Amino acid sequence: MANPSPGYSITMRLEAPPSYNATTQIAAAVASAGGSITALDVIESSHRSLVVDVSADAGDTRHAEQIAGKLDELDGVSVRKTSDRTFLLHVGGKLEVTPKVTLLGRDDLSRAYTPGVARVCRAIADNPDDAKRLTIKRNTIAVLTDGSAVLGLGNIGPAAALPVMEGKAALFKQFADVDAWPVCVDTQDTEQIIAVAKAVAPVYGGINLEDIAAPRCFEIEARLRDELDIPVFHDDQHGTAIVTLAALTNALRVVNKKIADVRVVVSGVGAAGSAVVELLQARGATDIIAGGRSGALNHHETYDDPQRARLAETTNPRNFTGTLHEALVDADVFIGVSAPNVLTEEHVASMAPGAIVFAMANPDPEIDPLAASKHAAVVATGRSDFPNQINNVLAFPGFFRGLLDADATDIVPEMLTAAAAAIADRIGPDELMPGYIIPSVFDPQVAADVAAAVANAAGPTTAN
Amino acid sequence: MANPSPGYSITMRLEAPPSYNATTQIAAAVASAGGSITALDVIESSHRSLVVDVSADAGDTRHAEQIAGKLDELDGVSVRKTSDRTFLLHVGGKLEVTPKVTLLGRDDLSRAYTPGVARVCRAIADNPDDAKRLTIKRNTIAVLTDGSAVLGLGNIGPAAALPVMEGKAALFKQFADVDAWPVCVDTQDTEQIIAVAKAVAPVYGGINLEDIAAPRCFEIEARLRDELDIPVFHDDQHGTAIVTLAALTNALRVVNKKIADVRVVVSGVGAAGSAVVELLQARGATDIIAGGRSGALNHHETYDDPQRARLAETTNPRNFTGTLHEALVDADVFIGVSAPNVLTEEHVASMAPGAIVFAMANPDPEIDPLAASKHAAVVATGRSDFPNQINNVLAFPGFFRGLLDADATDIVPEMLTAAAAAIADRIGPDELMPGYIIPSVFDPQVAADVAAAVANAAGPTTAN
Repeated sequence: MANPSPGYSITMRLEAPPSYNATTQIAAAVASAGGSITALDVIESSHRSLVVDVSADAGDTRHAEQIAGKLDELDGVSVRKTSDRTFLLHVGGKLEVTPKVTLLGRDDLSRAYTPGVARVCRAIADNPDDAKRLTIKRNTIAVLTDGSAVLGLGNIGPAAALPVMEGKAALFKQFADVDAWPVCVDTQDTEQIIAVAKAVAPVYGGINLEDIAAPRCFEIEARLRDELDIPVFHDDQHGTAIVTLAALTNALRVVNKKIADVRVVVSGVGAAGSAVVELLQARGATDIIAGGRSGALNHHETYDDPQRARLAETTNPRNFTGTLHEALVDADVFIGVSAPNVLTEEHVASMAPGAIVFAMANPDPEIDPLAASKHAAVVATGRSDFPNQINNVLAFPGFFRGLLDADATDIVPEMLTAAAAAIADRIGPDELMPGYIIPSVFDPQVAADVAAAVANAAGPTTAN
Repeated sequence: MANPSPGYSITMRLEAPPSYNATTQIAAAVASAGGSITALDVIESSHRSLVVDVSADAGDTRHAEQIAGKLDELDGVSVRKTSDRTFLLHVGGKLEVTPKVTLLGRDDLSRAYTPGVARVCRAIADNPDDAKRLTIKRNTIAVLTDGSAVLGLGNIGPAAALPVMEGKAALFKQFADVDAWPVCVDTQDTEQIIAVAKAVAPVYGGINLEDIAAPRCFEIEARLRDELDIPVFHDDQHGTAIVTLAALTNALRVVNKKIADVRVVVSGVGAAGSAVVELLQARGATDIIAGGRSGALNHHETYDDPQRARLAETTNPRNFTGTLHEALVDADVFIGVSAPNVLTEEHVASMAPGAIVFAMANPDPEIDPLAASKHAAVVATGRSDFPNQINNVLAFPGFFRGLLDADATDIVPEMLTAAAAAIADRIGPDELMPGYIIPSVFDPQVAADVAAAVANAAGPTTAN
């Protein structure tokens, strides 16, 4: 059973006997069922009964039912209703479209709408660049998905992907004041996705591609970059690559190694893995072995998938052939963007002294981080309940803030490395330690630093 | 020159001599130039000079320059800067995307985003109808245009149309708490527009088509209604038809005539005209002659355009042939959704006693309303500076509120007539008079009444 998590938080309304120790017994029953109590309130009290609301974190849905069952077994206690706090939070969606103008009377209306708006329209028709000044395009991006590779859930389609895209949009606004809008497209045809993205582009100052399956995502990103005059970013690739490079930069500082000198093994050659490899190379890494279940990509084999073929060409300078476990012997860095539990303690023990292990598979990492930490000098995961959480939210809000501020029309590799450096540099030399190589996702300064770094890398702005 | 309007409002910053009568002279100069002062503030004052901000409504851009010129001619006065208040209002766009959830810490994040969001996604994947409960689809509609027929500006394209769509979205939110999002598509191909609308539909609970040129708009609306499971409304047609029917209902009450008995002439057989004719017929009108510059549609001629062919079949029961001016002799009602100044006083004088004239061409009506009122019993226009403004904003916010509240999947004619009746009934029998047949666009009750009428016409709801 998974550990209790706020993602599986329930609130139960109970009727209980009006005894002094009723609430104590309730709390004890939740604890004995393995639940983690977060709130307990008596909301009604009479000589006949108490009504009590109990909130608790559970490990999963079945666990939540077990907790309610334990309470129901208590003498005189009955569970009237169980609410799932996560679902309650999502009811009605998580975004609103809010006017920045108030339309209190005819004067407001005639400026914001007809007839005044006609002059603004005409100005944009005469000078299309004015759209970036006089419309929401200035501060708005699309979060675009086809729902084909959502979280660990796979191909659940555009409607079921919407809660994730809404959450992403909320993060964009909260962390970097970027207005982001979900565009969940009801097609999984590469050409159609490209056509839809191009068709809706007039409203947006940038596009964040999200949770689109490989290899389709590569073609879509490349084509949109080529054919649109606004920046296009694939968060699963470039967001992951930025935060991975940021974490690696600081991990290498901790173990006092240089990126040009280390041997890196990357497990997973999908969208994220390819982007991580390319960004580490852009930053100076030379000895990277990348691969998956069928072993290290190497120069002996030929690969149908163009992405794998390219990786095989640019990685593995010693042309190692064998499994990733074998490649890990004497390696300095393991980066996992692959699958749960592909590593054991012994594999980590075989690495070079001062080993760095990033086990980023979600929600279950490539190796239990506690096990990895017995042999590695620095361990990081994607999880929030372990130190060193490598989370894209450190990158994407500030990254797009910087793009919009600089009126950037394209994304260049220097922006990615600058963003990674800005994240890494949030941790000063005095603070840096094996358990603190990456700032908290709630560090309020990260987004601003990333934005400034990206805008700076974009060069002199042409924005008004 | 047009009359001064808040849509052409400017603010000028002036330097003036520190005399007692400087502001009086400034105000007099603005008035003498035909401007209408809305604010005058002394913002700095010293022994050498005053700095004064003057806001005034002008008639158009050239008039604004003339006003500034008059001020510059005053002794010792210089205009430092002229700001256009309409443009200032639009800078940066008029909409924000605001999270309804706050993400203050890890617990919030794990409920609103990963890992908790995964359960919400899975629930929707298992039961697609849950998208209407657990995502923004519940309260969000698309305002979709190709920018081909924007206001009176014509085919200015999707980017230049965006300020209008933003304004529309602001009105949806302000009047009916509907979250509306601009979808400005960069194609004017009918099939591509349909494909894009269908592709983006998962996010939306309805689509408001806007400013799409005829005849393309008919095909797009019909196909989307057929192929999507969310309601599709073309505001230029159905919004206009609803408010026209509302105004006509009350105008007929004023002159004490019945819709089944009156002769109606409709000038303009584009999107709006066709929809007005169809809705009046649905409400019982039998004697409608519709046409344009080439005269009344009739049964002798054949029409290539299928929309005109259909109108020719269902209208003109007496099979009148001739110009609309000729058709107007002894008619009871004139409805113009066509072009400026196509009628003269004499035409109105030729109508039956108790004539009703709706001259709704924008911004300049088919006839000056003051001239029309010499001979007609009731006159209405689309203008805000004349009584009886027939404005779609009376209809569309409440209409979509009702559709969303009822979880409607389609739009039926009963909804349109119910909405019109709700608008008309906002004016009680005691209040009704020739100069007050339609409520103010700022009447806060209209949208709620329209919503209730539409939801009621939709029948028992299946929404949760």
